Amino acid sequence: MAKEKGLTPQSQDFSEWYLEVIQKAELADYGPVRGTIVVRPYGYAIWENIQQVLDRMFKETGHQNAYFPLFIPMSFLRKEAEHVEGFSPELAVVTHAGGEELEEPLAVRPTSETVIGYMWSKWIRSWRDLPQLLNQWGNVVRWEMRTRPFLRTSEFLWQEGHTAHATREEAEEEVRRMLSIYARLAREYAAIPVIEGLKTEKEKFAGAVYTTTIEALMKDGKALQAGTSHYLGENFARAFDIKFQDRDLQVKYVHTTSWGLSWRFIGAIIMTHGDDRGLVLPPRLAPIQVVIVPIYKDESRERVLEAAQGLRQALQAKGLRVHLDDRDQHTPGYKFHEWELKGVPFRVELGPKDLEQGQAVLASRLGGKETLPLAALPEALPGKLVAFHEELYRRALAFREAHTRKVDTYEAFKEAVQEGFALAFHCGDKACERLIQEETTATTRCVPFEAEPEEGFCVRCGRPSAYGKRVVFAKAY
Amino acid sequence: MAKEKGLTPQSQDFSEWYLEVIQKAELADYGPVRGTIVVRPYGYAIWENIQQVLDRMFKETGHQNAYFPLFIPMSFLRKEAEHVEGFSPELAVVTHAGGEELEEPLAVRPTSETVIGYMWSKWIRSWRDLPQLLNQWGNVVRWEMRTRPFLRTSEFLWQEGHTAHATREEAEEEVRRMLSIYARLAREYAAIPVIEGLKTEKEKFAGAVYTTTIEALMKDGKALQAGTSHYLGENFARAFDIKFQDRDLQVKYVHTTSWGLSWRFIGAIIMTHGDDRGLVLPPRLAPIQVVIVPIYKDESRERVLEAAQGLRQALQAKGLRVHLDDRDQHTPGYKFHEWELKGVPFRVELGPKDLEQGQAVLASRLGGKETLPLAALPEALPGKLVAFHEELYRRALAFREAHTRKVDTYEAFKEAVQEGFALAFHCGDKACERLIQEETTATTRCVPFEAEPEEGFCVRCGRPSAYGKRVVFAKAY
Ligand SMILES: [Zn+2]
Ligand SMILES: [Zn+2]
Repeated sequence: MAKEKGLTPQSQDFSEWYLEVIQKAELADYGPVRGTIVVRPYGYAIWENIQQVLDRMFKETGHQNAYFPLFIPMSFLRKEAEHVEGFSPELAVVTHAGGEELEEPLAVRPTSETVIGYMWSKWIRSWRDLPQLLNQWGNVVRWEMRTRPFLRTSEFLWQEGHTAHATREEAEEEVRRMLSIYARLAREYAAIPVIEGLKTEKEKFAGAVYTTTIEALMKDGKALQAGTSHYLGENFARAFDIKFQDRDLQVKYVHTTSWGLSWRFIGAIIMTHGDDRGLVLPPRLAPIQVVIVPIYKDESRERVLEAAQGLRQALQAKGLRVHLDDRDQHTPGYKFHEWELKGVPFRVELGPKDLEQGQAVLASRLGGKETLPLAALPEALPGKLVAFHEELYRRALAFREAHTRKVDTYEAFKEAVQEGFALAFHCGDKACERLIQEETTATTRCVPFEAEPEEGFCVRCGRPSAYGKRVVFAKAY
Repeated sequence: MAKEKGLTPQSQDFSEWYLEVIQKAELADYGPVRGTIVVRPYGYAIWENIQQVLDRMFKETGHQNAYFPLFIPMSFLRKEAEHVEGFSPELAVVTHAGGEELEEPLAVRPTSETVIGYMWSKWIRSWRDLPQLLNQWGNVVRWEMRTRPFLRTSEFLWQEGHTAHATREEAEEEVRRMLSIYARLAREYAAIPVIEGLKTEKEKFAGAVYTTTIEALMKDGKALQAGTSHYLGENFARAFDIKFQDRDLQVKYVHTTSWGLSWRFIGAIIMTHGDDRGLVLPPRLAPIQVVIVPIYKDESRERVLEAAQGLRQALQAKGLRVHLDDRDQHTPGYKFHEWELKGVPFRVELGPKDLEQGQAVLASRLGGKETLPLAALPEALPGKLVAFHEELYRRALAFREAHTRKVDTYEAFKEAVQEGFALAFHCGDKACERLIQEETTATTRCVPFEAEPEEGFCVRCGRPSAYGKRVVFAKAY
C-alpha cells in the first residue's frame, strides 16, 4: 500500500505528478461527465478555508452575499458584443425542460455579469441606491476543450463579486481593493508570492475595459492566473440600461466591476508548494495543521492513546486543527507516509518511551525532527505554524526569483519562458502578442503595477515599448 | 413611500401578502427565467445563518462537505426505476455544449443520489471505507409547472446529505439523527413547531424505501414540508453496484440515506411568524437582531449619533447582530415602518431627551415598548432575545394547536383541512389517498412518530386503519 501511494517525481513528469497527487491525497476524483471533477472532503475542506478567509474580507469591506439564477437567456449574453464573443464558444445550453422544448434556449451561466446587470436595471434608480456591493458563491460552467482538475474544469466553484458605482474613480478603487484582497489571500494565507498587474488588451476579460490579475509561478516554471478583478466601465451599464439620477439630478450610467477567484486557487497551492512526497499545505488553509500518530504495542495501546487524546485536546484548545490518527490497522510508517502525502504541516509522534520521559517527537513536513517536552507542544506549535508559513513563502519567493529573467533578445526570451517568468519589453500590438504566443506558446501574464519605469524595444518586433516598463511573459496554465 | 410599503392584509389574501412581503422586505425578486428567483442580500443573510447552524450540527455528527458535478448523464437517472419516474418530468436537459450537440444529453441535477452512487461504487471496497458521511451545499433544478418564491422555484439552493453504511440499522439511525437535526433547526433556531413523522408510500421520495419529514403549519392553515430524510435501503446500491467486503468477508450492498433542506425553509419562517406589518424574524436566524434608530434635529445630530454608535459597539461586544440606521434622508417614522416590515426583533429609539436622562426606548416587533437605562441595554438584550424566541415559538404552537382537529367523518375532515391539520385514520391504500387528494386537495403530511396508538377506520373508505395511529392530513405547499 505504501508503494501504491508512491508518486511520479516532479522532475520526471510534473503534469503526471500533479494528477497523481490529487488522486492519491484524495483531493478530487474525475466525475462521470467529461471535464468535471468531484471534490472530495479533504479537497473541499481547503476550499472551505479559502471561502472563510475571503468571505470575511469581503464583508469587512462592505460586501454582501446574494444569489442569482444559474440559467441565463441566450439573448442576455448577446447584449454585450465582446462578452458574447468571448463566452459563446464555451457555453452549455439547456434546450429542453419539463419535458418540452424551450422557446428560448438557456445558457448555463459562465459568469453572471448579464443577469446581475438586468436586475440592477430594475433596482437602481438614484445615487442613494449606490454603491451596490455584491458577491456570489456558486458554480459556473465553461465547456473547455482541454481540462485539468481544479485548473480548467467544465464546471467549477468560485466566487464572483459584482459592484456598481456612481463614478469611475470609485469603481477603479474597488477593482484594486479587491485585487489586493486576492493578493493578501495568496501571500498571507496560501504563502504564494504573486505579481499584481494589468492584463494586456489581448488577455483581458471579455467585456471589460481592463482586467487586473494576480499571477503566480508554479514549480514547473509555468504561470498561473490566480484571481482577476475587472473594471467594466459603462459597458454593461449601456448593454442593460443601468442608469441612476445623481446628486446633480443628471441621469448617468453606473460604472461596474467584477472580480472572481475559483477553486483553481487550490491548483496554485498544490503546484507552488508540493514536492515528490506529496502535498505541502500552507498552515492557514490546511484542513489539518497537526496530526498526532500514536505508536504502541498491545500492552501500551491504552496509555499512549490516552496521552494522545489529551494532547489533541490541549492543541485544539489553542485553536489548532488537529487530527489523531488512531487507526489500528495501519503501521506508524504507513501513517507517516500518508500524512506527508496529504501535506499536513506537522506530525507529532508519541510512543511509550516518549511518554515515560514526558516528551514527543515533532516532525515538520518541510524536513527536520525535534524532541520536545509534551507539555511544551501547545505553547510551541502556534509559533511553529507561523514560522512554517513564512518558510514556505520564502522558498516560493526564492524559487520565483531564481526563475525570473530580464531578457532583451527573442532568443533569450525563448529560453527564459522554458523555465519561468521572462521580463521583456513589448510594443503593445495584439498581432505581435499573438505571434509570440504562436512561436513560443508564452503569453503576457501582466504589466506589473510595481516595476521600475523603463523604456526599450519590443522583444519580438523591435518597435518601441508601449507600457513604460517590462511586461511579464510566461507559459501559463 | 410609507404607503408604498403597505401590505395586503393576511386575512384578505394570504398568498398576495406572501408575495408582497418578499418583494418589499427585499428578501428576493423574480429572475428573468420562468420560476427562478434572485435572493437579495437580506434574504441571503437568513440563508447564511441557516447554513451556519446546520453545517455546525452536520460536522458535530461526523459529516464532511464535498462537491459533485451539476451535470448527470441521463443514463444514470434511468438506473433506479422509481427515481427516474419521479424526476424525469421535471428535468432540465443540456443538449449542446461547446458549440456542439452532445452525444448523450445531460440532466441538470435535480438531486445527486445517482452521481454520488456512481462515485461510491469506485471508492467503497471494504467495511473500513464505511460509513461515508457526506454533505453538499449547492443548487439543483426541478422544472415545476407552478412556482412560488422560496417554496417552489425552478432552481433552488439546498443542502443534500448522502451517507452509506454497512448495516440497515446504522443507516436507519442516521435517517432519524438527521431528521432530529432538522427538527432542532426548526424549533430551537426558527421557532417553528414541527411534527416529525413518516411519509406514506404515496408521498415518499422517488427511490426511497421510506421518507421521514418535518411538517409545519403556516398561518393560512396550509402545511409545509420543511425538511426530509430518506432511507434508501439497497435501492441505489443495487442500481450503481455499491458493494463492500464486510468483516465477515462476505460481499454486501451498502445501505444508503439522503436528507435535504432547502431555502423553502425561509418560506416557512415567513409564513409561520409574519403579520400584517411584515416579517417577524426569529432572533437566532435574523440578519439584524437589534436596529438602532437615532432621533435628532440638526443641533442634536452629532451627540445622538455618537451615543448611538457607542450603543452599537456595546451591543456588538455582546455578540449581537446590530444595525444603526443613520440615514439622514428618512424620518424616524419611515425607519420604524421599514424595520418592522423587515421583521427585526428589537428596535432601540434614541433621542436627545432620552440621552439627557441616560435612557432609551426599546420596542419589540411582537408589540410593546419600554424605557430602559441606556447602560442596561447590553446586559438586558441577550435575555430579551431568548424570551422573544420563546414567545414566537409559543404563539406558533398555540396557533397550530388551535388549527389541529381530530376528525372521524369525511365531512368533518373536509372542514378541518380548510383551516389546518386534520388528524384522521387512513386505510393505507394509495388509491384511496389519491381520491382524498382529488376530492379535497388535502394530502397526507405524515404518520407522526409521537402519537397515541389508536385504532379506527379510514376517514374516507371506512376500511381499518393501517398505521395504528392517526395520520396528519392538510392542504400543503
Ligand atoms: Zn512587438
Ligand atoms: Zn381509505
